[in-house]
Amino acid sequence: MTDRNRLIYLPLGGAGEIGVNAYVYGYGPVDQERLIVVDLGVGFPDMDGQPGVDLILPDIRWLAERRDRIDAIFITHAHEDHVGAVGHLWGQLRAPIHCRAFTAIHARRKMEEAGHSAEHVHVAPVWPARVEVGPFNVQFAPVSHSIPEASALVIDTPAGRVVHSGDFKIDRAPMVGEPFDEELWRQIGQDGVLAYICDSTNIFQRHPGRSESQLPDPIGALIADAKGMVVATTFASNLARLKTLADAGVANGRSICLMGRAMKRMVTAGEEAGVLMGFPRTLTPEEAQDVPRENLMLIVTGSQGERRAASAALSRGSYLGHELSEGDMFLFSSKTIPGNEVSVGRIKNALAEKGVDVIDDSHGFYHVSGHANRPDLEAMHDLVRPRILIPNHGEYRHLREHAQLALAKGMEGIIAPNGAMVELSGNSPRIVEYIDVAKIYLDGATLVGALDGVIRDRMKLALNGLVAVAVIVDEDDVLLEDSWVALRGLPELSGKGDDLADMIEEELASAMTRFDAKTVNDDDRLEEAVRRVVRNLCLVEIGKKPEVTVLIQRLMAA
Amino acid sequence: MTDRNRLIYLPLGGAGEIGVNAYVYGYGPVDQERLIVVDLGVGFPDMDGQPGVDLILPDIRWLAERRDRIDAIFITHAHEDHVGAVGHLWGQLRAPIHCRAFTAIHARRKMEEAGHSAEHVHVAPVWPARVEVGPFNVQFAPVSHSIPEASALVIDTPAGRVVHSGDFKIDRAPMVGEPFDEELWRQIGQDGVLAYICDSTNIFQRHPGRSESQLPDPIGALIADAKGMVVATTFASNLARLKTLADAGVANGRSICLMGRAMKRMVTAGEEAGVLMGFPRTLTPEEAQDVPRENLMLIVTGSQGERRAASAALSRGSYLGHELSEGDMFLFSSKTIPGNEVSVGRIKNALAEKGVDVIDDSHGFYHVSGHANRPDLEAMHDLVRPRILIPNHGEYRHLREHAQLALAKGMEGIIAPNGAMVELSGNSPRIVEYIDVAKIYLDGATLVGALDGVIRDRMKLALNGLVAVAVIVDEDDVLLEDSWVALRGLPELSGKGDDLADMIEEELASAMTRFDAKTVNDDDRLEEAVRRVVRNLCLVEIGKKPEVTVLIQRLMAA
Repeated sequence: MTDRNRLIYLPLGGAGEIGVNAYVYGYGPVDQERLIVVDLGVGFPDMDGQPGVDLILPDIRWLAERRDRIDAIFITHAHEDHVGAVGHLWGQLRAPIHCRAFTAIHARRKMEEAGHSAEHVHVAPVWPARVEVGPFNVQFAPVSHSIPEASALVIDTPAGRVVHSGDFKIDRAPMVGEPFDEELWRQIGQDGVLAYICDSTNIFQRHPGRSESQLPDPIGALIADAKGMVVATTFASNLARLKTLADAGVANGRSICLMGRAMKRMVTAGEEAGVLMGFPRTLTPEEAQDVPRENLMLIVTGSQGERRAASAALSRGSYLGHELSEGDMFLFSSKTIPGNEVSVGRIKNALAEKGVDVIDDSHGFYHVSGHANRPDLEAMHDLVRPRILIPNHGEYRHLREHAQLALAKGMEGIIAPNGAMVELSGNSPRIVEYIDVAKIYLDGATLVGALDGVIRDRMKLALNGLVAVAVIVDEDDVLLEDSWVALRGLPELSGKGDDLADMIEEELASAMTRFDAKTVNDDDRLEEAVRRVVRNLCLVEIGKKPEVTVLIQRLMAA
Repeated sequence: MTDRNRLIYLPLGGAGEIGVNAYVYGYGPVDQERLIVVDLGVGFPDMDGQPGVDLILPDIRWLAERRDRIDAIFITHAHEDHVGAVGHLWGQLRAPIHCRAFTAIHARRKMEEAGHSAEHVHVAPVWPARVEVGPFNVQFAPVSHSIPEASALVIDTPAGRVVHSGDFKIDRAPMVGEPFDEELWRQIGQDGVLAYICDSTNIFQRHPGRSESQLPDPIGALIADAKGMVVATTFASNLARLKTLADAGVANGRSICLMGRAMKRMVTAGEEAGVLMGFPRTLTPEEAQDVPRENLMLIVTGSQGERRAASAALSRGSYLGHELSEGDMFLFSSKTIPGNEVSVGRIKNALAEKGVDVIDDSHGFYHVSGHANRPDLEAMHDLVRPRILIPNHGEYRHLREHAQLALAKGMEGIIAPNGAMVELSGNSPRIVEYIDVAKIYLDGATLVGALDGVIRDRMKLALNGLVAVAVIVDEDDVLLEDSWVALRGLPELSGKGDDLADMIEEELASAMTRFDAKTVNDDDRLEEAVRRVVRNLCLVEIGKKPEVTVLIQRLMAA
């Protein structure tokens, strides 16, 4: 029984959250399955959850421990939440990476930045060509999304065909890249699909999705009416949108200037991969300074309110020689990702203070989503016709809603959040094992586990402030009554107006005379005793119990 | 010239932000104006901007310095962003408070909690009765909003009539409280209005607002279809909504149980003030345990995802003897305030994990806003017919949009953000002075200025982590080469796996032998030298420059 072959699916990131995508498929005898990895993405930290952290990475310990069983890593597309962790994590996996040409440009850069050879990244041919690795036969089936060369993976195994949807929408005229190909999908479905692992981002959007091709007209009309400078922001990777924006600018007699490193990098990559054709000539920010503002259009990074991006810089003041003023227009050709509302709002307000007219997508004219809405998801279900549907790329509520839809439509729907290993090859899909998955944080140059306590400690410092206390135990094991106190993130004065650090030192001087030898001779006891004195005093004097760090210095006889 | 009388308007909070409302009107000779205060509200801190802070209060230093000129404080309604700071700040102002009966219940409680007498709160009669204070003649004109007895203030002065809109919407059937009275507003406008200071919250909402009376049918239909327990959440102060929810529950054979302190307090206050009639009988959580789940409806606090409220508690597990499970329904009869998306999403996901069906307002059936949308604002402009319109209760972009609308309609529109003192009595309104206004944070039991650096320091700790170092300079002014190091919010091990605290102690031992006497004998220099060593080492070893606190202990000869 244990050496029968089975087909498994294991999400390590991206199922139960939007971002940090990392999925595993395996085929073979139990615990000896050959493995492939699909996507290695990152997530972006915030002050609320991961202060000071640079990036959120998926927890791949399970994979790293089974490194010798990994045949390949496949990347579906070049968004950071799918490719961003490749450089940071490849060293633990060391398997060949397969992806399409545009994605490969980004994957290779990330490998090189992390000190790995770019040669581990292989450009995969598109459907119907196959990449054969171990027991897996993988085809990159083009889908429309908000970045060029996004792909679903059609994974044929001895146990049947699995389709991994990748991020997708149904767009028959995506402006840049391959349009949705209904016939191709019908064909994929006709051969019989065991399981469809499917994007759930927009499951709650009940209207059919809109096409990128619906944008040029309203955006053109908007720019035609603009009197001053026009600035537009969107995701740098959305090359179709960049082209729509730039073309609309040119059609209205404006020169185009791209601002933000990611913006230029993406356009260059698009041209290099041959997916972006006919992008208008652009000026450097310096050249653009000579262009009258009514003839200029800036296309800039920072649509999510990122503090260091061009949008934020322009909202604060002059940036690369350009400054916005009364009568200019700023277009958010983008949706604000939940959690970013406050930072985006900050930029809008700062622009309003400059007299800039801010146009956003609140009326739905200037942006379309890159993910399939509910009716489009249903259309895909009907083409792919899987026996099993497993929702991914969604928070838990998205997964649940999508699984319920699948059940209602007669498929076997199952909710598999991160860490839930599903056996697909049995009579019906079931979760056969739960793997512990936390998150890993890239923090400066080190990797910190989400459960290591480091980040939790930072949050405690931020919420409570800190009192650092140094006490000295002399050569004769006598605790000196003097202590030294420093405050961080706390008011200098108590509610009554006294110096708080002085008060703590006085209180300690008096309390420490009462500490017994057992306390003085034991670091843990002494630390706890000092902490209690400090916290109790602070509660009385400032109404807060701060964090307390005690440095105990035991002097040695010379 | 300097002793001519003038009429001024000065927002101290709420203009350039949504929340923390505090406005001043003054009449009299320049710098001798008699003053009234309208609203003293609070704002709610978040980890991103004010970690550890309990409440955000308006900066009333300007007012406190002119305390003898304040004739009265008026509170328009009982929402926390209008009345919440009354207890915390009254001690600095000490003027009588006027508000309507329902608001007075809340204002009195806040006064008592802060140790002030509730007798300073006076119940004001409604229009056409007047409260005469100094040169001001003030009438409370009822408006519809999402709380009972919300009022605009009609302020007659020797320089003319000013109307302070308060928070309002146009609702001709608000279910609880006074319906919108068009005739009353026509009358207010007919007497001639100099200036209208007007709510701008929903200026970007282009469709006419909807009435509270549109909700009972869809909410009733939803509950009729529910199979398991029904839980609904909304703002506790929205008594109309609480009644609609409770009535719909009762009509469908369910017993009602209120959970959350604010919920019970609001219903009691509504009954006490005589504004809430016929609220169904409620069960205590304990009594409700005996009711079969299909016959029970909980109405609970925490619609904004507050971690300690009933909604969050129920999403996590059992709360007051009740636990949600598969087939139950949870209705958010509320809008998520920008910035709260992530916390609300966390609750929705936790509920989905329990198998609960979550219904929110994404389709607009189960919630209506308490603020006037653009067409309703225009309707009010046309009734009040002011010469000057000054937008308030909005972020800068709302104020700008509303002022532009006013200009387009032939009014004199002016943007006056917090601190901008506007003279209303001249030929045309103009900003005559800018007052420095920051924010004040209630932090435990002390008040901390937003610019004091305390909160900034907390954020630095959270972003960078902290190294605390204790060094000893002995009786002979010799720096001991031993130092003691403690880490907070930093990984214990370097990227290479060495103990970081040990490495820092070793590096300091070696570096400190090279410090010259000038450095050792000067606290600032010594601290800076130690800090530099620590930060440089950490940058190399963990890729981060932490905060460093240095405790220098200079031992005295005995």
